[in-house]
Amino acid sequence: MIKSDIIAQANDAANAKLKADYDALGEALDRRGIDIAAIKSKVAKYGVAVPSWGVGTGGTRFARFPGTGEPRDIFDKLDDCGVIHQLTRATPSVSLHFPWDAQPAADLNSKAEEVGLTFDAMNSNTFQDQENQQYSYKFGSLSHTDAATRQQAIDHNIACIALGREIGSKALTIWVGDGSNFPGQTNFTRQFERYLEATRQVYNALPEDWTLLTEHKMYEPAFYSTVVQDWGTNLLIAQQMGDKAKCLVDLGHHAPNVNIEMIVARLTQFGKLGGFHFNDSKYGDDDLDTGSIDPYRLFLVFNELVEAENNPDFNPMHMLDQSHNVTDPIESLMVSATEVQRAYAQALLVDRTVLEGFQESNDALMATTTLKHGFRTDVEPILAMARLEAGGAIDPVAAYRASNYRAQVSAIRPQVSGAGGGIV
Amino acid sequence: MIKSDIIAQANDAANAKLKADYDALGEALDRRGIDIAAIKSKVAKYGVAVPSWGVGTGGTRFARFPGTGEPRDIFDKLDDCGVIHQLTRATPSVSLHFPWDAQPAADLNSKAEEVGLTFDAMNSNTFQDQENQQYSYKFGSLSHTDAATRQQAIDHNIACIALGREIGSKALTIWVGDGSNFPGQTNFTRQFERYLEATRQVYNALPEDWTLLTEHKMYEPAFYSTVVQDWGTNLLIAQQMGDKAKCLVDLGHHAPNVNIEMIVARLTQFGKLGGFHFNDSKYGDDDLDTGSIDPYRLFLVFNELVEAENNPDFNPMHMLDQSHNVTDPIESLMVSATEVQRAYAQALLVDRTVLEGFQESNDALMATTTLKHGFRTDVEPILAMARLEAGGAIDPVAAYRASNYRAQVSAIRPQVSGAGGGIV
Amino acid sequence: MIKSDIIAQANDAANAKLKADYDALGEALDRRGIDIAAIKSKVAKYGVAVPSWGVGTGGTRFARFPGTGEPRDIFDKLDDCGVIHQLTRATPSVSLHFPWDAQPAADLNSKAEEVGLTFDAMNSNTFQDQENQQYSYKFGSLSHTDAATRQQAIDHNIACIALGREIGSKALTIWVGDGSNFPGQTNFTRQFERYLEATRQVYNALPEDWTLLTEHKMYEPAFYSTVVQDWGTNLLIAQQMGDKAKCLVDLGHHAPNVNIEMIVARLTQFGKLGGFHFNDSKYGDDDLDTGSIDPYRLFLVFNELVEAENNPDFNPMHMLDQSHNVTDPIESLMVSATEVQRAYAQALLVDRTVLEGFQESNDALMATTTLKHGFRTDVEPILAMARLEAGGAIDPVAAYRASNYRAQVSAIRPQVSGAGGGIV
Amino acid sequence: MIKSDIIAQANDAANAKLKADYDALGEALDRRGIDIAAIKSKVAKYGVAVPSWGVGTGGTRFARFPGTGEPRDIFDKLDDCGVIHQLTRATPSVSLHFPWDAQPAADLNSKAEEVGLTFDAMNSNTFQDQENQQYSYKFGSLSHTDAATRQQAIDHNIACIALGREIGSKALTIWVGDGSNFPGQTNFTRQFERYLEATRQVYNALPEDWTLLTEHKMYEPAFYSTVVQDWGTNLLIAQQMGDKAKCLVDLGHHAPNVNIEMIVARLTQFGKLGGFHFNDSKYGDDDLDTGSIDPYRLFLVFNELVEAENNPDFNPMHMLDQSHNVTDPIESLMVSATEVQRAYAQALLVDRTVLEGFQESNDALMATTTLKHGFRTDVEPILAMARLEAGGAIDPVAAYRASNYRAQVSAIRPQVSGAGGGIV
Repeated sequence: MIKSDIIAQANDAANAKLKADYDALGEALDRRGIDIAAIKSKVAKYGVAVPSWGVGTGGTRFARFPGTGEPRDIFDKLDDCGVIHQLTRATPSVSLHFPWDAQPAADLNSKAEEVGLTFDAMNSNTFQDQENQQYSYKFGSLSHTDAATRQQAIDHNIACIALGREIGSKALTIWVGDGSNFPGQTNFTRQFERYLEATRQVYNALPEDWTLLTEHKMYEPAFYSTVVQDWGTNLLIAQQMGDKAKCLVDLGHHAPNVNIEMIVARLTQFGKLGGFHFNDSKYGDDDLDTGSIDPYRLFLVFNELVEAENNPDFNPMHMLDQSHNVTDPIESLMVSATEVQRAYAQALLVDRTVLEGFQESNDALMATTTLKHGFRTDVEPILAMARLEAGGAIDPVAAYRASNYRAQVSAIRPQVSGAGGGIV
Repeated sequence: MIKSDIIAQANDAANAKLKADYDALGEALDRRGIDIAAIKSKVAKYGVAVPSWGVGTGGTRFARFPGTGEPRDIFDKLDDCGVIHQLTRATPSVSLHFPWDAQPAADLNSKAEEVGLTFDAMNSNTFQDQENQQYSYKFGSLSHTDAATRQQAIDHNIACIALGREIGSKALTIWVGDGSNFPGQTNFTRQFERYLEATRQVYNALPEDWTLLTEHKMYEPAFYSTVVQDWGTNLLIAQQMGDKAKCLVDLGHHAPNVNIEMIVARLTQFGKLGGFHFNDSKYGDDDLDTGSIDPYRLFLVFNELVEAENNPDFNPMHMLDQSHNVTDPIESLMVSATEVQRAYAQALLVDRTVLEGFQESNDALMATTTLKHGFRTDVEPILAMARLEAGGAIDPVAAYRASNYRAQVSAIRPQVSGAGGGIV
Repeated sequence: MIKSDIIAQANDAANAKLKADYDALGEALDRRGIDIAAIKSKVAKYGVAVPSWGVGTGGTRFARFPGTGEPRDIFDKLDDCGVIHQLTRATPSVSLHFPWDAQPAADLNSKAEEVGLTFDAMNSNTFQDQENQQYSYKFGSLSHTDAATRQQAIDHNIACIALGREIGSKALTIWVGDGSNFPGQTNFTRQFERYLEATRQVYNALPEDWTLLTEHKMYEPAFYSTVVQDWGTNLLIAQQMGDKAKCLVDLGHHAPNVNIEMIVARLTQFGKLGGFHFNDSKYGDDDLDTGSIDPYRLFLVFNELVEAENNPDFNPMHMLDQSHNVTDPIESLMVSATEVQRAYAQALLVDRTVLEGFQESNDALMATTTLKHGFRTDVEPILAMARLEAGGAIDPVAAYRASNYRAQVSAIRPQVSGAGGGIV
Repeated sequence: MIKSDIIAQANDAANAKLKADYDALGEALDRRGIDIAAIKSKVAKYGVAVPSWGVGTGGTRFARFPGTGEPRDIFDKLDDCGVIHQLTRATPSVSLHFPWDAQPAADLNSKAEEVGLTFDAMNSNTFQDQENQQYSYKFGSLSHTDAATRQQAIDHNIACIALGREIGSKALTIWVGDGSNFPGQTNFTRQFERYLEATRQVYNALPEDWTLLTEHKMYEPAFYSTVVQDWGTNLLIAQQMGDKAKCLVDLGHHAPNVNIEMIVARLTQFGKLGGFHFNDSKYGDDDLDTGSIDPYRLFLVFNELVEAENNPDFNPMHMLDQSHNVTDPIESLMVSATEVQRAYAQALLVDRTVLEGFQESNDALMATTTLKHGFRTDVEPILAMARLEAGGAIDPVAAYRASNYRAQVSAIRPQVSGAGGGIV
């Protein structure tokens, strides 16, 4: 954690400007009939989970270029996550990944308490082979042709649930890379039947108050077909499983040009939107920082979420899921959490009664102008004030850099080699 | 129709070569343990419907360059369709489009009998405004915000059913362009609710033995969102409507890179594959000739269809849906019907027991090689012999050109102006 | 034109709020060390040309749904363009399209003067056949296999130059739809050789102070190959022709996911960026309103343009090129011109010295944050104040609606039929 | 190497069928006026290089699932490459990758001679950091902002040339991953200036008879921009460098839907096509087996190459570049080399005089039918007979499996761990 006087010092330097900006925005919003305090209050309550693996430097199949002071284990990772939440007040929980983060529940709970975090959804891993694993996932996991391999994957997911129960998690997220690289390699129908049968075993092991989140992805690591390739198949899974099963939408997992906000709307309409993995992308599953490539798309997703907020049953889970290859992961996650809040705040500014009127009368130009009015408002003072009031930093990156946190942990955590992997 | 002696003459010239090629292929297939006659017999029974509008020259929003002898009405169109079937023996039915083809049922039936054709699915049109139409579809049809406009679209579809009953059709295909061009122009959820409610009225008007086919499309004419944008939404429609409702897959209506054969498999698995619009495309809904751009993809679709053939309930409808901008439409439709049969014949050659074995043992290389073995076999002699034996032409294009059919109808049908439309 | 008291009245109602917003923004920018007046001054000088065809309602190959009061000819169109500039003060020139707008130069000049406009680049049309045209462009124009057809296209372009000289234009924009719909239909190399040879004839006819702008486009109306398919081929053309030849970039003419701002940078670096057609798109060449789908991409393009502004030789032409299918074209063009100015103003806010420092030290996070800081600033008060000071409207759409201009011209201009074209 | 009696035994079993198939095809081609022996002779002379790294199992950023008997070093790799050529007679050379394959030239030459191979283009590696490397490539190599890092990359490339000269290579292939992950991270223009300047140093070090091949790629490992992102930029590089510089086309490095065969034609026309990396892909740079996803596209590329063959200066280099994640790499490379030959043979079958006639008269349908006629001919007997006559295997995969080569090397080469890398 960062010493509170460092944060205070950074805030002191920025406080006057923030106050002026916030007041000016408050008056401008007031001229539009919007109460800035109400928006700020909603933003303050809004949090997004951080993935434990996100605080390590990511890479590609070509290379990974590690940073300094990389976390050695889940406890280091929780330290880093704690800093992110300390400064942003926007990331109150962490999503764990098994077996990478497998540790005794008591130790996890104790560390989480220490750094002021709780645990979000559990993530299982059947897309890699672990040391001493009996069956390989080279040709699939939950949908493998071999029953014993499927059982091993089922057991692993059930073990994730067991561990999750001990640390207060309420959801299991399943993402599998199962698919094929060649036409004909797999029989699409039988593969999906096997997937459904295996996932049913996991579903049956869910506690009553848990949610099963399944995640679709167009491609990668499989390059011809993927068993849960899009929201259509994901919907079928959730329908086949039952009420506790819902769909998770990762913003980077779709075909080019796809209208993602519409998928969000459809899943919401049919009660099957379970949660998000936020990130941004230009080409494939690039896992770039949320909002860094197409911030308007992120806003349009949040426009759907705010639209659905009135429904009391609507409560999707929110998580960042990014790969930080060229930035300090802590910085990227702080900025990304802020971007999520920014899109949320902008969507809250949209006058929905006015919008509905334009939609009803097919006034396309004024309808879209109404949305844009929300988007183009610079809500940074709201986000910063919410952070400040909650004990965070006006400018998280500046405070973080001032703290020298990275240098401090680098002194403790040994440098990892940058040698390439030879996967091309 | 083309005089039979012209066809006979053309066939006589090509017969010896065909016989030699067919015999050689028969022996080659025999060396692979395949009975050529059995394949030929299946191919001979396989037909694909021709769209009535397909025999006119198509165009783009920029221009249409008419050919000579363009059909003036549905009766001219049926003449052209008759020629296509006469020469290919592969297109026994025609799919009508209302109101373009609206004529007294008796006249349609009489003409169809004259040219030896039957009627396939009816196609409604609520994506254009017709002269004297009360409400405009500019902002939608079945999903319009205005109830009277929706009702007009519902009534039109029910009228299509009424006409279809009189001419022996058993299916209604609904494709709507409803959507939006701007974020915010429409509320996704309410728009889809209206669509479902309106389509329910049409569904309720279906005779017991009819099928409702709904068609998804990613974009065009709407360029931000489309109400039935993909197979996920299409599936929801079919689920909401009931057993008579199924999904129609147009090969050109998907996002870039999407694995279409997998969508075919999923819809088949859940009993919701209703039919196809065959064509090919490189960029968007290009409506190019079937198999002209990616013949292997067409083969992979047929691989799924042959896979599903054992299921007695599996009986999707097949139609060509193309825009012939630079070719004689009769020639393109003849070649395209042949390409559909080619893919079917190639898929029939795949040894499915062997394939299943490789799939089961995850021998990806041999599995895909097994598929490719079917694909790379030149089955043209089978197709040509099936045509010849059914009274068609060994080489339909050659026979058609020899017949001078186009010149003959051009003498009767006046030349259409090529002036551009000014839509850019 | 709209009566000035109507504009004044509308401005009066909005003036107090604008003043407050502008002052607040001025203070906020001052806190960032930016002089709002300097930005406003640059914005005030920034104009974008309107395409004459843009004021008519557009359509798709499926249908066109006309609006009311559609312009009957170029003089009506100039009236509409005059209104756009009157209210936005951002569109001082009009780009004509031949032969659609072919009228005596004196009449064009006189009308332009009346409505306060000048003429931008000339646009030739060899993608449609005109009544009484000798050779058809069905199979190409400048690259046609037939020399006489090529000559006809050359002559048409030279005629465009002749007309342009009389009305003060300084550039010819060539866009051709030449290409193919089938593999093998054309020989890529010979087709391009013919294109280069024909374009050379046009180039040779250019006055000394003119620019030849060639436009690339991935596809449509040709659906397999297009002779000027991308910026690589476009660059080759400009290189082959000479110094007066430059490349025109239409934002909607690229493959999915392509980084357009990088193409802008490359063409700029090698002195070959000639101009822009601004619009927005989600799928193909959707020709949606500029900035309506991905405003950040538009900003990133302007970031390159502002980056290049210091180069005295850098002077690309700017034009809107959109299809307004569901909105009043005047409204869409006004909003789009504003969006172009908005992106320009946001790009001006970026501190380039700071940005360069982060780039030099590979501080990716702070570099992108620096860009985003410009983008997320709501510069609307700057744009509105610039308009107001130049005699335009604070809120152009509101003033336009208050003026009843559309109803007034509708009384004069007869309603166009909405019947569909039958091109599917 | 595989014992010759094993190959002989496998060939004996397949010989009678091959002879019958070859004779039947010969007669069928004779009926089309084509001399099968002439085609076979051209195919026999056609070879494609194998990448040394291709014989190891590939992976993704998520995981690598090693096979058994993976090569430990370049000498093992050359053994595997020797087997591929032994059985296919289609892969006479190997392309090395430095520093992965760095060994004394004498040892490399000696081993190459032992296994009957020569060395193709050298490949440098500045997309990974090697142990003990002074400067990191995390933020770029040849285009890095830091001059010392650029120099290190230059020196590495020059070292590659030095090594290449000793082993008979005549080309250096440069592929860099330099780019950016965030808008603003890099200045496009300055980055490309640095790239050009650094590459100039490498170019200047080239022996007279060498070729510099630069390779473009749309994205990955950089996810917002890549310095050599497409053929337009690649062309600029080749133009700036000089006559010895040419462009390398990797089939998987383009934007979705791009017409790659047209890029091949353009680069050929302007003398800048230097070579190929063959593979296939459905989504991104999937590096799947050549011809496995879209064999017609591969054929269309070869159609251009055969078209250009008459030009005596036309002599591009050919290499496979694939990632074998789920197959035995030796098997995939053998099948892929065969697919390259298949596309070549099919393209040779096209009657170019006839094709030209149809192109000249704009008979699109017959032009594309002419191409397809070549494509749909099953040329497998030609390929197999060419292999057999050259001492290879009729069915390379069958012979390879019969040889037990993999099991034999697995006994010598230790099993590699399958533990995942933790890069997500």
